[in-house]
Amino acid sequence: MSTVIKGIAASAGIAIAKSFRLEHPDLTVEKKAISDVKSEIARFDAAIDKSMQELEIIKDRANKELGEDKAAIFAAHLLVLSDPELLNPIKEKIENDNQNAEFALNETASMFISMFEAMDNEYMKERAADIRDVTKRVLAHLLGVTISNPSMISEEVIIIAEDLTPSDTAQLNRKFVKGFTTDIGGRTSHSAIMSRSMEIPAVVGTKSVTAEIKNNVTVIVDGLDGEVIVDPSAEVLAHYKEKKQKYEAQKEEWAKLKNEKTFTSDGQHVELVANIGTPDDVKGVIANGGEGVGLYRTEFLYMGRDQLPTEEEQFEAYKTVLESMEDKPVVVRTLDIGGDKELPYLNLPKEMNPFLGFRAIRLCLEEQDIFRTQLRALLRASTYGNLKIMFPMIATLAEFREAKAILLEEKEKLVSSGVSVSDTIEIGIMVEIPSTAVLADQFAKEVDFFSIGTNDLIQYTMAADRMNERVSYLYQPYNPSILRLITLVIDAAHKEGKWAGMCGEMAGDPIAVPILLGLGLDEFSMSATSILPARSQIKRLSKKEAASFKEKILAMSTTEEVVEFVKANLMN
Amino acid sequence: MSTVIKGIAASAGIAIAKSFRLEHPDLTVEKKAISDVKSEIARFDAAIDKSMQELEIIKDRANKELGEDKAAIFAAHLLVLSDPELLNPIKEKIENDNQNAEFALNETASMFISMFEAMDNEYMKERAADIRDVTKRVLAHLLGVTISNPSMISEEVIIIAEDLTPSDTAQLNRKFVKGFTTDIGGRTSHSAIMSRSMEIPAVVGTKSVTAEIKNNVTVIVDGLDGEVIVDPSAEVLAHYKEKKQKYEAQKEEWAKLKNEKTFTSDGQHVELVANIGTPDDVKGVIANGGEGVGLYRTEFLYMGRDQLPTEEEQFEAYKTVLESMEDKPVVVRTLDIGGDKELPYLNLPKEMNPFLGFRAIRLCLEEQDIFRTQLRALLRASTYGNLKIMFPMIATLAEFREAKAILLEEKEKLVSSGVSVSDTIEIGIMVEIPSTAVLADQFAKEVDFFSIGTNDLIQYTMAADRMNERVSYLYQPYNPSILRLITLVIDAAHKEGKWAGMCGEMAGDPIAVPILLGLGLDEFSMSATSILPARSQIKRLSKKEAASFKEKILAMSTTEEVVEFVKANLMN
Repeated sequence: MSTVIKGIAASAGIAIAKSFRLEHPDLTVEKKAISDVKSEIARFDAAIDKSMQELEIIKDRANKELGEDKAAIFAAHLLVLSDPELLNPIKEKIENDNQNAEFALNETASMFISMFEAMDNEYMKERAADIRDVTKRVLAHLLGVTISNPSMISEEVIIIAEDLTPSDTAQLNRKFVKGFTTDIGGRTSHSAIMSRSMEIPAVVGTKSVTAEIKNNVTVIVDGLDGEVIVDPSAEVLAHYKEKKQKYEAQKEEWAKLKNEKTFTSDGQHVELVANIGTPDDVKGVIANGGEGVGLYRTEFLYMGRDQLPTEEEQFEAYKTVLESMEDKPVVVRTLDIGGDKELPYLNLPKEMNPFLGFRAIRLCLEEQDIFRTQLRALLRASTYGNLKIMFPMIATLAEFREAKAILLEEKEKLVSSGVSVSDTIEIGIMVEIPSTAVLADQFAKEVDFFSIGTNDLIQYTMAADRMNERVSYLYQPYNPSILRLITLVIDAAHKEGKWAGMCGEMAGDPIAVPILLGLGLDEFSMSATSILPARSQIKRLSKKEAASFKEKILAMSTTEEVVEFVKANLMN
Repeated sequence: MSTVIKGIAASAGIAIAKSFRLEHPDLTVEKKAISDVKSEIARFDAAIDKSMQELEIIKDRANKELGEDKAAIFAAHLLVLSDPELLNPIKEKIENDNQNAEFALNETASMFISMFEAMDNEYMKERAADIRDVTKRVLAHLLGVTISNPSMISEEVIIIAEDLTPSDTAQLNRKFVKGFTTDIGGRTSHSAIMSRSMEIPAVVGTKSVTAEIKNNVTVIVDGLDGEVIVDPSAEVLAHYKEKKQKYEAQKEEWAKLKNEKTFTSDGQHVELVANIGTPDDVKGVIANGGEGVGLYRTEFLYMGRDQLPTEEEQFEAYKTVLESMEDKPVVVRTLDIGGDKELPYLNLPKEMNPFLGFRAIRLCLEEQDIFRTQLRALLRASTYGNLKIMFPMIATLAEFREAKAILLEEKEKLVSSGVSVSDTIEIGIMVEIPSTAVLADQFAKEVDFFSIGTNDLIQYTMAADRMNERVSYLYQPYNPSILRLITLVIDAAHKEGKWAGMCGEMAGDPIAVPILLGLGLDEFSMSATSILPARSQIKRLSKKEAASFKEKILAMSTTEEVVEFVKANLMN
């Protein structure tokens, strides 16, 4: 009998495959005094053996499926595990100090890791990363817990996880991940955004998938209705195969709009562009008929690694995106780290309220080396396409002025050293902090464009953490206060002859689209997979009619009123 | 040679006394296997002995200085420490299971605490609290750390602490605490607010007082200039004694305004009222000529204890405040718990961003028993004075409507059971969430008044945690975006014939006062000690002139512009 688990539909479509549990076991180590030294040494040796066997298998599979290149990492891990310089001190701690194996391993490994990391030598820094990975593997065996190897998935699977962190998604082999489902998160959580960017069906916030789904059972992820079906009967399976086909047929209908621009029924053009996280995502943008990139989240370049990306690495990524998009606009957001996105190697202090903390432009203005490196990479790439740069989390004009001054300084330096830089780069800001929306008229005099980041704007305006399920009822995109702030931003831009876009999840939401059209939004940036359905919706809408409801909607007092009105008057 | 430590002036005045370090040592216990059982038992017995000696001394002092009543608590603690029902199981764990004393104590005590707490019996619940306190004391001895006994301070001191939590302040003996200084916090942190409410000089955010100041050395807290002087020379001491006298002379000047109402130079009346935390604070309000209470923070009733206050306890507190204030207005804020204010006995889950989490009205609407108990206590007290009730953290009209409906339901029930309830209670809201400020015109149709809570409003509008020093540069009360939101609220209130007050720290700030006067604010609620200086400032200001600058100020683009303008045109 099949089990049905309800959740939040995060990315459309139906996926059917075997389950793969992505686990992050607790590897916390306690110090214990041991009495039986001999058996502790034996336990340690056994954990090393098991880890080596595991790594041999992974290495062989990597060799076959991913190439020698990737397999080399695991060969390096094997070397670490047979290195007496690492193993002997651990055994000494067990024998001489009666330390338990976990603690002795952790202490010794940490010492080597900090030593290697402190060296100004790429090769040694990579060794530190190897030791860290290997230590985790051995610790897992010592503690008797399971660790997943997501990078080694080699058959079609549906990922089952408590949540997907940015570093998890960086490791996933996209070829084989057909869908995923998580315990926590909502439509704007990282995992939900990633699922849309990867164009795979996803259901998040189920509360219970990790408790209810074992490894290697058949799972259906219904990203249309927000359901996960475990171990379906033949009948149920047939039903979902049919549903899958129907959805794919509808997608084919939408696909016919791929090469059109986006015009309303009364002939007004709006721009439908895509949010991307990596150069790989550009394929999806083109496949889905995006008229550009409205948000390139550059932080993925910084994640899933052990140190900052070099200027060269960044330059290559930006150049690739700009070239692939040809002359279409590409809006790049500078580093937005902090908040729910951590970079372990920056060693940022823990904050009590990270969403209200030291993140994004706040961090970049202080850690200027990081910021300037990124800006140089962007400026150098600017001649390869139609680049626009925007700064995240701008709260005051002073911050914008400072960020812009740094950008112009780096440009000046590059130009005077003979590097060619585009002279038509637009410089804009994300509007995601209430103060900036309220003061948009002042900002509009100085920026080239606005991009409204509704995910954060809503959480700050409502003072409700969008990741916290206990206050999720306050995450209200259609709350009249949010619509009023959006209106302030759009009107301020137009008054100064600038444009206003939106790159939050709201921009691709079927209920929000007619409202935003009526408020005069110029650019809608969304998950690539939302572009064709949105284009199909907008073709059927009259901008003039939508605009005629503007005053009425802005004078409403609750979300419910707005939704009801839109459904009755602006949806067909 | 005296050391000078810089910090943030949190409460005006000069205090000179001996230092008292308030310490919260880490009492985390690790499980260890022990080999020498006999010496472990001896170690445990020694810790019990030391704790008993300590408690005897505290008990005797309490008897002399605080009365038998308070001393009884310590007598109960002594009984716990000689109870074989608690001690024997601990010793057995040490002897039979080779557990270390800390772990055995912790396990056994926890078991008794949960058992007693689960009983529906007041007496047994108190026993649970006793065991908890005593366990801490013994653990501290076992771990070799010091715990402070703030409730036992019996001579004039200056408190030195990393930070003061609400439960610390609940325990302080106000008679002897002459001033305090902390490592962390800013002007709006709990400790700063408390210092103003207690009318004692304080310097917060020094970063280093706990590192630099030992117990029992002479310390000067200069709450005027934000400095702490440690171990002053005779000369320095003389200088500060003089400074103290001068400040006290100025206070005497201000005191002459005590019985006046607050009129501007052009004869306009505004209301200067006070923020209070406990019924005790009313004395300060009256002594400082407050025209009422603009914010009664009821959460202190819930803190520093082991269970919720009963309806009766609350009723007594509210009645006392209302009676003491006679017919002057008393605005009571319903429970604002969560965020930086925790109640351990509610067992709320840890949140990633508590300031954006499940707090205040959000919690009250879900935990309705707690909310209804408070409302009943308030309604019953309403006939004893001029009560106004306001709800904190209102983000949507739906929340206000629900909270008001619950209030009216409880009123209905009381009235129909024959309890008399005032019919003139005004029902208002705190405006501290951007959405509510933006939608103030809609709210104004349904509420009786607004009270702008700038501490939170600023942190949400700027998306910057006001407790986080790395983003403290964004805590900008004079940012034009904040002033615009304030204006929206005041104008919306006036349009509907309602009044608008402010109960954030900004209301008593000399730079903000002329701006707020010009924006038309009706009521200024502040620390009692700020009332007379503010009255003196307002007497010298013309409301008409202040209002003439309104448009100009609201069209400014940065904080710096605003401050410069106010200093040049509105300060004398």
